[in-house]
Amino acid sequence: MDNPFFINKGPFKISEILNFLSIKNDDVYEDIDIMDVNDLISANINNITFLHSKKYNEVAKKTKASFCITTSNLKTELPKTCKPLIVSNVLLSVAKVTEKFYPNSVNDLFDDTCSIIEETKFKDKIKHGKNILIGKNVSIGSNCNIGHNTIVEQNVSIGNNCSIGSNVILRNSIIKENVTILDGSIIGKHGFGFFPNNTKNLRYPHIGLVIIEENCEIGCGSTIDRGSISNTVIGKNTFLDNQIHIAHNVKIGENSIIAGQVGIAGSTVIGRNVKIGGQAGISGHLKIGNNVDIAGGSGVIKDIPDNSKVMGYPAKSLREFLRENRWFIKQQL
Amino acid sequence: MDNPFFINKGPFKISEILNFLSIKNDDVYEDIDIMDVNDLISANINNITFLHSKKYNEVAKKTKASFCITTSNLKTELPKTCKPLIVSNVLLSVAKVTEKFYPNSVNDLFDDTCSIIEETKFKDKIKHGKNILIGKNVSIGSNCNIGHNTIVEQNVSIGNNCSIGSNVILRNSIIKENVTILDGSIIGKHGFGFFPNNTKNLRYPHIGLVIIEENCEIGCGSTIDRGSISNTVIGKNTFLDNQIHIAHNVKIGENSIIAGQVGIAGSTVIGRNVKIGGQAGISGHLKIGNNVDIAGGSGVIKDIPDNSKVMGYPAKSLREFLRENRWFIKQQL
Amino acid sequence: MDNPFFINKGPFKISEILNFLSIKNDDVYEDIDIMDVNDLISANINNITFLHSKKYNEVAKKTKASFCITTSNLKTELPKTCKPLIVSNVLLSVAKVTEKFYPNSVNDLFDDTCSIIEETKFKDKIKHGKNILIGKNVSIGSNCNIGHNTIVEQNVSIGNNCSIGSNVILRNSIIKENVTILDGSIIGKHGFGFFPNNTKNLRYPHIGLVIIEENCEIGCGSTIDRGSISNTVIGKNTFLDNQIHIAHNVKIGENSIIAGQVGIAGSTVIGRNVKIGGQAGISGHLKIGNNVDIAGGSGVIKDIPDNSKVMGYPAKSLREFLRENRWFIKQQL
Repeated sequence: MDNPFFINKGPFKISEILNFLSIKNDDVYEDIDIMDVNDLISANINNITFLHSKKYNEVAKKTKASFCITTSNLKTELPKTCKPLIVSNVLLSVAKVTEKFYPNSVNDLFDDTCSIIEETKFKDKIKHGKNILIGKNVSIGSNCNIGHNTIVEQNVSIGNNCSIGSNVILRNSIIKENVTILDGSIIGKHGFGFFPNNTKNLRYPHIGLVIIEENCEIGCGSTIDRGSISNTVIGKNTFLDNQIHIAHNVKIGENSIIAGQVGIAGSTVIGRNVKIGGQAGISGHLKIGNNVDIAGGSGVIKDIPDNSKVMGYPAKSLREFLRENRWFIKQQL
Repeated sequence: MDNPFFINKGPFKISEILNFLSIKNDDVYEDIDIMDVNDLISANINNITFLHSKKYNEVAKKTKASFCITTSNLKTELPKTCKPLIVSNVLLSVAKVTEKFYPNSVNDLFDDTCSIIEETKFKDKIKHGKNILIGKNVSIGSNCNIGHNTIVEQNVSIGNNCSIGSNVILRNSIIKENVTILDGSIIGKHGFGFFPNNTKNLRYPHIGLVIIEENCEIGCGSTIDRGSISNTVIGKNTFLDNQIHIAHNVKIGENSIIAGQVGIAGSTVIGRNVKIGGQAGISGHLKIGNNVDIAGGSGVIKDIPDNSKVMGYPAKSLREFLRENRWFIKQQL
Repeated sequence: MDNPFFINKGPFKISEILNFLSIKNDDVYEDIDIMDVNDLISANINNITFLHSKKYNEVAKKTKASFCITTSNLKTELPKTCKPLIVSNVLLSVAKVTEKFYPNSVNDLFDDTCSIIEETKFKDKIKHGKNILIGKNVSIGSNCNIGHNTIVEQNVSIGNNCSIGSNVILRNSIIKENVTILDGSIIGKHGFGFFPNNTKNLRYPHIGLVIIEENCEIGCGSTIDRGSISNTVIGKNTFLDNQIHIAHNVKIGENSIIAGQVGIAGSTVIGRNVKIGGQAGISGHLKIGNNVDIAGGSGVIKDIPDNSKVMGYPAKSLREFLRENRWFIKQQL
């Protein structure tokens, strides 16, 4: 990913990275420059990638990366062009390397580059409320509104015709055209990703963004976390109600409708035209197809194929749910 | 409803409305002035109403409205005094007509009529914190407190002896006496009502209010959306805990107690003396009786009669729930 | 509890307390000074305590308190050194006495002692954003960050190396070293504790604190309420994700991980190394052991012993849950 917001401190020599990770490989490498750290799919030649689960074996076979942090069990899945770097804890090593390339992506301290909007070039360009703060590296299109007390921290791009409410906090996000973000939402914070450690947990870098496509609406008090290595994406014309939580790396397709208090855990991918009822929860790392209806209150713990209707906890096909609860559906409470 | 906040741009001639909706009726009408758009019950003579579901047939028979937007299937339910206007999509046509009468009710842009409280008549009248903004058409009773950074947007009436916390956003709401609203709540935003549309969803007008009756308490970080055509109402002496979401048109009776993170979907009506445990969810368009106990975590998908205790997802009678889980209740985990 | 924040207006003579509670006891007491009101365990000689449920009989036998508000049924559990004060409604009487000792602990009006940080001693000591308010009786350690628009109300102690985000509200809390509190969290408000009453509910005093131990992280938009008589405690190195609600008197052990939108009801005690998945809910007054895994979406209504894995609503052992849903786990949706 050519990262628009987090500055890549690379390249680093592969010898420096090996040394940094305390890897003593017998293999002899040319001491090339490593340009970036990236996931298996996005990585290019002269990038370093990682493979930590056999779930990704098929993808691993096609990676273009020159090096891959992995385990001795998994290394056989890599193509010959990609040399394995064997470690005991893949994700921990990835975190360290990512932090080396992107040192500003680990913590989310408040943005001290913010100025009050009246002192910025947006003073007369944007219709705005009072007490608004704008960080550096912010762009805002034409015909936008920004409400009172809102903080647009650094690394935000807002398209034309957007309405940002009051008490909103944005950072590390790309907001396309005609997007509405309602009051009190917090968008672009790092995700809940870290390595548990008995004395002090180790924070995982988050160099992904939040991308909100055209015509979306985000409800009040919602939180959308930015991705760790890939991005968190809300597809075109998808509407979110109030108090929704979208974790890091989640991708939601276009024309979806998500009701209040829904939570979607990290790295889950949701298709187009999906309807999710209030308070439903979706586990992490799942694939939800297109045209899926998930009833309110459901707890989804498995992938769901296209065109399904599901309900329950664990969420099962609506037909099955109704069959199990037939006595209930018929009787009075 | 004689709307105190949204300005009625009517009357409009019925011929103009027919034209606007592209309705070509063969019927010949006197070209009367239509004063307002209203629901079946609230509508008066010279109002326009709508009927989109046979669920409302009984109410439809008694409407006083002069015209009703409906379908050819449903039109036979209307009294002779109410002339049907046949359309293919009732709610879409209602949205268009409502927007014609109340053009300011569709979007919730930030209120640019707000002034800092020190520049308003409330400066010395209200005990207040710092950075408070007050919009036009706001009234506040005696002996009130308003905390730091709170935004009272236009069209808010606050009674005597109220405490509004910090970081609160209010709009389009009537707050009666002795009400406490805790920090970070957002009250009076439009509901999650719109017509899905594959390129760009169409926002539904929301001309209803939020009415919070005497002696209520609203917890931190809660959201209460205003009604679309009717109001969202919290009854006297009802207490809401933190992070609760009340959708548009919901009505809750008096002396009810609602624990943290509960969500109530649109248009559901809840009785008096109802207790709802934490994280319970209630589907939309339901009727929950008086003196009902809903256990924490329940998912209510059916009407509940008076004096019931329910639990589970789907919520069933507590007796039934315990019977099903008897083995569980007895054993150790 | 030697309360660091709420000022104890005592001592009061026991005769004055009896009179205040309208208790006419036949017993003859020496008219001693009562120094404080406290729970059964924390109470010392010359304190008043309370016993309202046989659940606490074992603890009651060992109390050091000189007097105990209780019922005639429960009074036999008290040691001879603790004299019973018999009332019809124990908790209501305790509330009245607590309010007498700590009159400022009932309502949470905004803190009018707040000044903008530039007018305080923290101006140059703390790296801070804009529009920050600081109340009286606040201490902040070295090397701390505080983000924009944050309100640190009175009675807050923040240790070294802490990061407080933007739009945060803190009060009545002790934050230890190396703690991160993310944007929009509200910490230290009184709990959802009151006596239902048909005309106007009666608020319960909350003289407890929130204590957040070293190395914790609290996610965006979370709410942590302070305790009523004991404290709400988040143990060392415990991480909370976004939109979590922790009710009053809850205690969470160290090294625990709690995912988004979890809710924990009042007075529940949770052990060390506990993992709680997203949207899980835990009822009040439960005891969850050490090393417990609670799956996302679970509804816990019973105590859980150490080293358990549970799932479901009601939450049962993971093995049992999987057995019941075996057909489901195997089949495609």
